Amino acid sequence: MTKPYNIGMIGYGFMGRAHSNAYANVSHFFDLEYKPVLKAVCARDKDKAQAFAKQWGYESIETDWKKLLARKDIDAVDICTPNNLHKEIAIAAAEAGKAILCEKPLAMDAKEGEEMCRAVEKAKVPNIVWYNYRRVPAVTFAKQLIDSGKLGKIFHYRANFLQDWTISADLPQGGAGLWRLDAAAAGSGVTGDLLAHCIDTAIWLNGGIANVTAMTETFIKERKHTLTGKVEKVGIDDACAFLCRFDNGSLGLFESTRYARGHKALYTFEINGEKASIKWDLHDLHRLQWFDHRTEGPLRGWSSVHVTDGEHPYMGKWWVPGLAIGYESSFVHQVADFLTGLAQGQPVSPTFRDALETQKICDAVLSSARSGAWTDVG
Amino acid sequence: MTKPYNIGMIGYGFMGRAHSNAYANVSHFFDLEYKPVLKAVCARDKDKAQAFAKQWGYESIETDWKKLLARKDIDAVDICTPNNLHKEIAIAAAEAGKAILCEKPLAMDAKEGEEMCRAVEKAKVPNIVWYNYRRVPAVTFAKQLIDSGKLGKIFHYRANFLQDWTISADLPQGGAGLWRLDAAAAGSGVTGDLLAHCIDTAIWLNGGIANVTAMTETFIKERKHTLTGKVEKVGIDDACAFLCRFDNGSLGLFESTRYARGHKALYTFEINGEKASIKWDLHDLHRLQWFDHRTEGPLRGWSSVHVTDGEHPYMGKWWVPGLAIGYESSFVHQVADFLTGLAQGQPVSPTFRDALETQKICDAVLSSARSGAWTDVG
Amino acid sequence: MTKPYNIGMIGYGFMGRAHSNAYANVSHFFDLEYKPVLKAVCARDKDKAQAFAKQWGYESIETDWKKLLARKDIDAVDICTPNNLHKEIAIAAAEAGKAILCEKPLAMDAKEGEEMCRAVEKAKVPNIVWYNYRRVPAVTFAKQLIDSGKLGKIFHYRANFLQDWTISADLPQGGAGLWRLDAAAAGSGVTGDLLAHCIDTAIWLNGGIANVTAMTETFIKERKHTLTGKVEKVGIDDACAFLCRFDNGSLGLFESTRYARGHKALYTFEINGEKASIKWDLHDLHRLQWFDHRTEGPLRGWSSVHVTDGEHPYMGKWWVPGLAIGYESSFVHQVADFLTGLAQGQPVSPTFRDALETQKICDAVLSSARSGAWTDVG
Amino acid sequence: MTKPYNIGMIGYGFMGRAHSNAYANVSHFFDLEYKPVLKAVCARDKDKAQAFAKQWGYESIETDWKKLLARKDIDAVDICTPNNLHKEIAIAAAEAGKAILCEKPLAMDAKEGEEMCRAVEKAKVPNIVWYNYRRVPAVTFAKQLIDSGKLGKIFHYRANFLQDWTISADLPQGGAGLWRLDAAAAGSGVTGDLLAHCIDTAIWLNGGIANVTAMTETFIKERKHTLTGKVEKVGIDDACAFLCRFDNGSLGLFESTRYARGHKALYTFEINGEKASIKWDLHDLHRLQWFDHRTEGPLRGWSSVHVTDGEHPYMGKWWVPGLAIGYESSFVHQVADFLTGLAQGQPVSPTFRDALETQKICDAVLSSARSGAWTDVG
Repeated sequence: MTKPYNIGMIGYGFMGRAHSNAYANVSHFFDLEYKPVLKAVCARDKDKAQAFAKQWGYESIETDWKKLLARKDIDAVDICTPNNLHKEIAIAAAEAGKAILCEKPLAMDAKEGEEMCRAVEKAKVPNIVWYNYRRVPAVTFAKQLIDSGKLGKIFHYRANFLQDWTISADLPQGGAGLWRLDAAAAGSGVTGDLLAHCIDTAIWLNGGIANVTAMTETFIKERKHTLTGKVEKVGIDDACAFLCRFDNGSLGLFESTRYARGHKALYTFEINGEKASIKWDLHDLHRLQWFDHRTEGPLRGWSSVHVTDGEHPYMGKWWVPGLAIGYESSFVHQVADFLTGLAQGQPVSPTFRDALETQKICDAVLSSARSGAWTDVG
Repeated sequence: MTKPYNIGMIGYGFMGRAHSNAYANVSHFFDLEYKPVLKAVCARDKDKAQAFAKQWGYESIETDWKKLLARKDIDAVDICTPNNLHKEIAIAAAEAGKAILCEKPLAMDAKEGEEMCRAVEKAKVPNIVWYNYRRVPAVTFAKQLIDSGKLGKIFHYRANFLQDWTISADLPQGGAGLWRLDAAAAGSGVTGDLLAHCIDTAIWLNGGIANVTAMTETFIKERKHTLTGKVEKVGIDDACAFLCRFDNGSLGLFESTRYARGHKALYTFEINGEKASIKWDLHDLHRLQWFDHRTEGPLRGWSSVHVTDGEHPYMGKWWVPGLAIGYESSFVHQVADFLTGLAQGQPVSPTFRDALETQKICDAVLSSARSGAWTDVG
Repeated sequence: MTKPYNIGMIGYGFMGRAHSNAYANVSHFFDLEYKPVLKAVCARDKDKAQAFAKQWGYESIETDWKKLLARKDIDAVDICTPNNLHKEIAIAAAEAGKAILCEKPLAMDAKEGEEMCRAVEKAKVPNIVWYNYRRVPAVTFAKQLIDSGKLGKIFHYRANFLQDWTISADLPQGGAGLWRLDAAAAGSGVTGDLLAHCIDTAIWLNGGIANVTAMTETFIKERKHTLTGKVEKVGIDDACAFLCRFDNGSLGLFESTRYARGHKALYTFEINGEKASIKWDLHDLHRLQWFDHRTEGPLRGWSSVHVTDGEHPYMGKWWVPGLAIGYESSFVHQVADFLTGLAQGQPVSPTFRDALETQKICDAVLSSARSGAWTDVG
Repeated sequence: MTKPYNIGMIGYGFMGRAHSNAYANVSHFFDLEYKPVLKAVCARDKDKAQAFAKQWGYESIETDWKKLLARKDIDAVDICTPNNLHKEIAIAAAEAGKAILCEKPLAMDAKEGEEMCRAVEKAKVPNIVWYNYRRVPAVTFAKQLIDSGKLGKIFHYRANFLQDWTISADLPQGGAGLWRLDAAAAGSGVTGDLLAHCIDTAIWLNGGIANVTAMTETFIKERKHTLTGKVEKVGIDDACAFLCRFDNGSLGLFESTRYARGHKALYTFEINGEKASIKWDLHDLHRLQWFDHRTEGPLRGWSSVHVTDGEHPYMGKWWVPGLAIGYESSFVHQVADFLTGLAQGQPVSPTFRDALETQKICDAVLSSARSGAWTDVG
């Protein structure tokens, strides 16, 4: 028998949609003990909440997240607000005994993140952070390959996340859709928004980062603020790059920017091991590039593996070989795994505590960019 | 106000799942007057029908398609059976006044298809065939580019659909999942299964085909039959290739096989026009390859357009630039367009009549392969 | 001790340059008993002959090829004239006891080719035809892989040669550089010029072709003739496609055109075997695409092999891994192999007799295009 | 009338061959006032010198470079020795009034380089350094595009040079072919060998570099030394990465390693400008990737420009569109440009002075890697 699992969603933006799609579809593809029920959506603007509820089939709405947390019929809260609200809501949700699925980055900084971790750990509520790229089948497959030892000792890790949507100086900062340009709401720019993804994947695949040296830049120094109507200083980093050393001795190179003309959301990583190497990019997320030194010499080359077979992670649940799934399915997989963990009474990674590690690295990166010095990760 | 639109699904296989997913999701992404309701699924095996109903949320089941057609609470019937049942069900459904969404190919041959066309036209019921690739955004975009005149006069059209899943002689024919290898159930092999897709896209993009010369081959002559348990002659074509002339004077080259080692479901097409050319392939279905002769000489090259922007067909309904959708979304788009046509009282392509044209070309191809002669399309 | 080997070149066009480059460089990279000496170049236009001789270091010139053949100090004649002169020169050269390196296609048709074969066989002179693509390292490597049995039984062979340089109706026919558009000089259009390359490679890699069905088209029916100054009917095929059956039971698909907008000289082939598949294209001639079914399931993919290692054919003679050589090196390799055969007293493929097979297939293709019927290869 | 230009080559290794090939071929493709004559090759080992002279057609040999410099019949000296000999030979050559073509990197460090610059400037002898990648047609074309303003303001520059040939711990250091692993002969590891190429291209395309922060690693700490026969400490950097700021405000990211499994000689760069972006890689050196924001929105994509047209830099001298040239041609182009400059009495870039800038950046990189601090370029 499937048991209903009641979701309370806070937020209705891009991520609110992506998560709702995951709750709505997960039980069509995965056999799970729990079945998500779209119980309530919460947004300050009542009309928007109602429109969103209608579109996605939420049974009810709230306009105050505290009321949502007070409801007995909500099992889990999904936090899709701007970053500056994560901490307050998450701590209150933990105190209300709700499971929490929180958008990334976990918090504005590691200090906030630490408080959130303590709250969920004290309350013993299931918790997870939406670093969804771990569950793109090709990325999960990369994890399996690394864990199986097929790459051997790792020498190099490089990742970047390149976009180009903020090149125009006419783009304002702040408000719906643009809060990511507003330091007060976002905390940082590309570091928390994009590099956080790269870092989460990296530490999952390659272990901890010991220290970093970083550089940031804000190419456009002032932008009109949507909320104040005035031209204001831009407080976020438009671009950030850093070098680092992993605990396992490998060297890391990370870069992110919103000024890389021609790239929409090009998240790529490459890992070079003694025996094999791996590459992946989000623009062709259904492929894994694979080089295996054990192949007979003259036949060695980079293979483009179309990760759509039944034996690839998650793919047995979808269509037939050769037919790719999309970006949104990574969220479906995260819900499937989360609900499986729930049934088994097991935490599912990345927990708040796992995500705190990424936060610490982001803090070290931003600190190093200010000081110019190599900086140890907290 | 959205109006419910009650779907009766016949079949529960691969296509039953793909279509159910489309009905379940279309209203989350598209604002439509009609909202599909998964009213009933029909399958001869009661347990399978129930399991499917539970997985996808169908409200009820039937084990006899005639009973499904007799129900007053069904607005539209979706035919996902093997090809040899399409005709009987479709004609009965038309007579029962149901709208029909029929899997491709329309029928076992053009004669059957003609009867089906007459039935739906007489009954004046909405009808459409699931040639879903027309609604992959990159393919729809190709159609827009051609219709806008950007390619100019067309010289060449080439397409192929390459698979490798039947190379093993141990694979049996017939029965669930393998009826596509059984001529009695499928009518033909790759011609109806794969080339039909290529042909549907081709005549949509490039107009009618006048005549063809074809070659077929059955590499493995005998296979065990799942239903009889005996080794029986294989009646389908394992591979088929043909040359043709389009009505517009361009030359066509088509090939399909299930013996192309290394290709899972590689449907590709390329169109060469006087001013520009286009390429697409299903393995990277979110990209369109584009060559524009009007570009400044030394900068001319094939562009890989990542068809994920809001201004690309259908994509404004999904995520943000750079984030790809999957194979299954093409069905969502077809439902969206079908329901839009319903609200407007307009037929939506490919209707049964449109799909009959593909059937005629398939017939001419198979006839030419037998005779060795150039053959006019019916 | 290296022995001088005196070359007499007839012609000074594109191929005259490519061959001269090969003679000039072969001994820098290959250790050979014979070292080519650029003894004489022959052209009707004395100024052009002198300019060419100076540029490439030919020791002398001739303006009458018969005089060249009469010279005692010429060991081998290289025929780089338009196709309609091959036969007469080759037969005379054979009678004069010269070794012959003849540009492809061998002749205007198989009848001429047969006469040429008889002449060189009677005179017992070394002879070879410049189907240079056999000696692109990636193509030679493909041959090795096939011969080693790594592909197993072959099911499919497809090749095309796509160009776009004659789309403009303003391009005249005939005369220097444009004789390929003039049926009187070229014999045929893309069939002899481009498909002949595809066919030569195909029969080398995959064995004989039994029969064909073909289609040709001349998109622009009339062009100004450079020599007469008048608008004249175009006698060549602008495009040609054919289906065929190989002697080994595999199916073939070939296409060539000069109207494929966006392709400069895109010669590609793909071979699908039971165990593995191969793809190659001239635009990236240093790469071989390889799919090996024996790879562990989830890791299977198409590998892009950068054919630049010392263990790859010919590459041990060049630079270091990762550094590609160019188109022109295929000619260097052909000269190296030709001179090696000479030292060993062995014929080197493709001999005139080998090239005659391609001529017969071209004849069958053109005949089928006229008749519309499947046609056996002579 | 062409004038002979007598070359004295010092060294006979990989670069000796690449340069000899350039001298031997340049006049076949370029119309130049000066024609190189392979006058003498110098190597300590007489047999090797003689073998090299025979293979490439050098008229004579020397076993002492001082004797070579003393010869009146030598116009220019080409220095292809290990890095630790560059300075002494170059200064002596300048004093002997010889033109100098020196392998890169210019010197062991900037101090040496400065002395060499002063020597050639005092002697007023033509001088150039073999940073050959500037003259790969696609790279030269990139320079033209940037200089034309097509990219607009530059935001990002990233480059890497990845190899994998030293991963095995069994590989010794020192001696012929392996002097690049020996700090005494090479000065540094990947920094001088590989990053120097990336830096030379970068400052040519994007201007000066202001400051850097760097990280180096030596993965294998000890290797047997070929000359001493003993296991000795490895003094070179196996890997090096650095962040930097260019004078124009753009951010730079550079990485090089010989431990990137799967990459033979993958030199890549990417430049992101406000209006357009460029990518290139050495493994497919005949292609330039180009993204142009001015393209009509939905058609924007990365174009793969096959840099083989007559209107592309240098390509009008070679074959026909679609036919790629190889790595070695970049040296041919450098000789052509050098001889053109000679005829015009103009210095040709990169002169010793130009190459000194790269040396200074390498010094800053190595210094920063030691100190851990951001370091200004000398």
